[in-house]
Amino acid sequence: MTDVAHMKWWGWGVEGVGFHHEDKPAFAPFVRKAVGLDVSTPPAPVDDFSSVEVPASRLSDDAHTALTAIVGAGYALTDDLERVVHTYGKSIRDLLRLRAHLLPRVPDVVLYPADEAQVELIVSWAVENDAVLIPFGGGSNISGSLEPPVAEERVIASIDMGRLRKLIEIDEYSGLATFQAGVLGPDLEEQLGARGWTMGHYPDSFTHSSLGGWIATRSSGMQSDKYGDIAEITKGLRVVQPGGTLVIRPIPNASTGPSVREAILGSEGRLGIITEATVQVHRLPERREVIGYLFKDWESALVAMHDISTSDAAPSITRVSDARETGFSFATRKASTGISSKVTAGLMTVLEKRGWDLDEICLSFIGYEGSPSHVARQKSMVGSVIRKHGAVTVGKGPGALYDQKKFDTPYLRDFLLDRGAAADVSETAAPWSKLLPLYRNVRAAADGAYAQLGTEGWIMCHLSHSAHSGACLYFTFAFVHDGVDPIAQYDVVKSAIQSAFIESGGTLSHHHAVGTEHAPWLEADISAPGVGLIQGMFDAIDPGKNLNPGKIISSE
Amino acid sequence: MTDVAHMKWWGWGVEGVGFHHEDKPAFAPFVRKAVGLDVSTPPAPVDDFSSVEVPASRLSDDAHTALTAIVGAGYALTDDLERVVHTYGKSIRDLLRLRAHLLPRVPDVVLYPADEAQVELIVSWAVENDAVLIPFGGGSNISGSLEPPVAEERVIASIDMGRLRKLIEIDEYSGLATFQAGVLGPDLEEQLGARGWTMGHYPDSFTHSSLGGWIATRSSGMQSDKYGDIAEITKGLRVVQPGGTLVIRPIPNASTGPSVREAILGSEGRLGIITEATVQVHRLPERREVIGYLFKDWESALVAMHDISTSDAAPSITRVSDARETGFSFATRKASTGISSKVTAGLMTVLEKRGWDLDEICLSFIGYEGSPSHVARQKSMVGSVIRKHGAVTVGKGPGALYDQKKFDTPYLRDFLLDRGAAADVSETAAPWSKLLPLYRNVRAAADGAYAQLGTEGWIMCHLSHSAHSGACLYFTFAFVHDGVDPIAQYDVVKSAIQSAFIESGGTLSHHHAVGTEHAPWLEADISAPGVGLIQGMFDAIDPGKNLNPGKIISSE
Repeated sequence: MTDVAHMKWWGWGVEGVGFHHEDKPAFAPFVRKAVGLDVSTPPAPVDDFSSVEVPASRLSDDAHTALTAIVGAGYALTDDLERVVHTYGKSIRDLLRLRAHLLPRVPDVVLYPADEAQVELIVSWAVENDAVLIPFGGGSNISGSLEPPVAEERVIASIDMGRLRKLIEIDEYSGLATFQAGVLGPDLEEQLGARGWTMGHYPDSFTHSSLGGWIATRSSGMQSDKYGDIAEITKGLRVVQPGGTLVIRPIPNASTGPSVREAILGSEGRLGIITEATVQVHRLPERREVIGYLFKDWESALVAMHDISTSDAAPSITRVSDARETGFSFATRKASTGISSKVTAGLMTVLEKRGWDLDEICLSFIGYEGSPSHVARQKSMVGSVIRKHGAVTVGKGPGALYDQKKFDTPYLRDFLLDRGAAADVSETAAPWSKLLPLYRNVRAAADGAYAQLGTEGWIMCHLSHSAHSGACLYFTFAFVHDGVDPIAQYDVVKSAIQSAFIESGGTLSHHHAVGTEHAPWLEADISAPGVGLIQGMFDAIDPGKNLNPGKIISSE
Repeated sequence: MTDVAHMKWWGWGVEGVGFHHEDKPAFAPFVRKAVGLDVSTPPAPVDDFSSVEVPASRLSDDAHTALTAIVGAGYALTDDLERVVHTYGKSIRDLLRLRAHLLPRVPDVVLYPADEAQVELIVSWAVENDAVLIPFGGGSNISGSLEPPVAEERVIASIDMGRLRKLIEIDEYSGLATFQAGVLGPDLEEQLGARGWTMGHYPDSFTHSSLGGWIATRSSGMQSDKYGDIAEITKGLRVVQPGGTLVIRPIPNASTGPSVREAILGSEGRLGIITEATVQVHRLPERREVIGYLFKDWESALVAMHDISTSDAAPSITRVSDARETGFSFATRKASTGISSKVTAGLMTVLEKRGWDLDEICLSFIGYEGSPSHVARQKSMVGSVIRKHGAVTVGKGPGALYDQKKFDTPYLRDFLLDRGAAADVSETAAPWSKLLPLYRNVRAAADGAYAQLGTEGWIMCHLSHSAHSGACLYFTFAFVHDGVDPIAQYDVVKSAIQSAFIESGGTLSHHHAVGTEHAPWLEADISAPGVGLIQGMFDAIDPGKNLNPGKIISSE
């Protein structure tokens, strides 16, 4: 056993933590109405790991000895639990497969290198011995970027980067911090915070995802409006490749031909193992506020988000949920927290008197950071836009609550799965002019898929990550599966949603990578010559296809 | 003759326009002091084009007929002036070669396609007939990106994109405009301005550079702090490649693997011919102000620029000249404009009384855009930083003057060259912590080069394009050449400066591309594996090396 912690083998997060609804009185009726599920159904028990049949490791003793010589005793592991934990990420497809013991191919060995020199030796070993390497950060991926190809005959090693978690250096004057790539979100922010800095990157997976993983999948955090996506945050890189170690020095902007930095971003291990990154960091803001607003309907909310993006205001978060996600949000409140139910009831009565349809209300969060006067000024600018669109302010309460529970949603998925419902997310980005039609097309596509399956299904959405020319729409969907072939049912729904993205002018993913899950839509998204250019990069750096083959371009 | 206008064959800009010093009394003494040149020396006459010996076109009659069938009669030109105009860009190396009639290899034909379909036919023709294609926008490049390889035996065609200049569409709600790639700066802004929009991209070459050229070289404009570099502005692309036409749809941010969009940016024609781009555009700002400030010295000025970048302020321009460039700026003022000399004299007396060394003063311009209240707020935030560093405001006068003459500097280079002095620019970017040592190293490297040459030389600098983690330093250098081998002398100076960039933690260029001029430093900048990745892209898209071979990676 190493000291690198992992999530539950069968689900999200740490052992002993899960979603509970007993203190959330509105939850059970909400779920019954949404997908026809009775949450008081006793949960299916999760199997004991000892009942899982795991294919034997194909690693020879000689190879094990050679790898142990590189990483040290106890850091080249072949036991079943280690190998299963490193087989999948945490998509609903992954969870369904784990619960069904569908493990046709698992890594043959899990390696825990201690430093870049060891990673270099591992890559050399893999090339010389024609083995396959799959880098592993926090294991939170939901796009199939981590899984071994089922037909792969060669030895497969998962490289767990968990021991590479040091803050190497802060260049305080430049606002640049250099970290080893395996550092997880909370550890990274703690090391920075101790010295008064923040990177400001908070994806939903934050608690269980790593810097290297964010870079390898083009992650985006909730505060990207201010701090940028990981592509903007990442300035320098070190990447171990078969031909040597790639070094991109931290330069604010460069004119050095096709961007190699931007080729590593989103490369999912196919262009090498990211060992180190130099990232932009900011002084912890003097003030930080997340304010809640209520819009009369989704249409006016979307226009308001657009108008904020074209105004002089520069908030750190712009986020608004559609009426369904707003309903979900209200249903997961504890009876005694948040906007207390009395105040809420009072406000709702007022809004109803104004002619609002309470089922159409959309909850928005806008974040502000900086000096007190800057925050005040930003709030005032956003306030003008908000009021113009008839919205009302509900203050800091909902924002504080959102901040507290923002990383908890994945636990809910396991709760639902325990009771027979499959849930996952799909997100996209598109120009402002295309967002509303895209939204409607996706809703219709999901409903069509549910009808095809003859099941009750749900889809809800929020807008986040506003940019000048567009934004991200993030959909969460759920349905009660048939218990026979839930993966096939999931494929029908997921496929309908992804196709609607592309057909409506959106991309296959704004910040969840391609992996194997989204690979079928890559050519439709970036055109065949675009796929050819990416294939050219892979062929140049990894002619032996030793680096995470089958990801991004699955047709090879 | 087509209706596509070109610059002078021997120098910058349009016929009949040049730099004059007679109305700038301080200019002659300044130049005498800086490089020991007497500007009253009568200028060397520029040769009549008829005296230039131009190698014959290698294009066969059959090929000429085939190409004329593609682009139409009068648009496949083989006359000498056309071919010489398309041989080089406008670096000092280019100007020296043109004036010395050094034309060892010129394009064999200049093609003016009318649309993307014709470009596709040209690319197919080139691949089938193993010819070389070099795309040409405004011809302002100073990195050798346009020149035919001297040893190239195959037919070389320059593709002048000047006829592709239409605004195809504005998506007003998304702030996205789609243009044909050959459109020049003024034409682009005029088409946008007529509908109330601006792209806000104003590089020094603006009047004679094209959208496609900006994209192919990773250009940056003066107002990049607000509008972004061209890499951020460009959202969608169409690129004709040998394997088909690459289409990148306009998406605000995507997670589709290694970025193909960012591979085309800076590709200098090696990954195809850019025919169309969708770019971010903004409503013309309600108010725009450029305010001048004076700093006591360069050191305090750099700290102030850093502090503005870490403050809540978001100006559209941050720019400060070192003492030498400030002196140059004052020396090129007309006697009767700008800060009137009386006011200047009065201010200088005050500053001298405060203990300032007038030879160390640094002139800064900060730009503000937005609503009147936003501009006022930004000015006030910047003002606090400025004052903290002891600087004084000199108001709108110098800024207005800067706005007027910002595109005139290249004409001065021809004026100096007429009189025996060679001048050019080199620029870089680095983290904030490295800028001052880099600046000192570059000054020392240039002075070392001048000493080695035994000539009087000059180098001056400004900071521009502030980013969170660093900025661009832009150097202009000049020396009186020996009249024997000025190119060899230039190489000594240029090489010393570029090497100092890399050794001091800077990049080979922030926004002038690699071309052939900066290619010797590419490996030191992005490491050998980085060069290998770029080579892999070229090999994948252009296995026949038909697309602008020898650029970016010259060692092939």
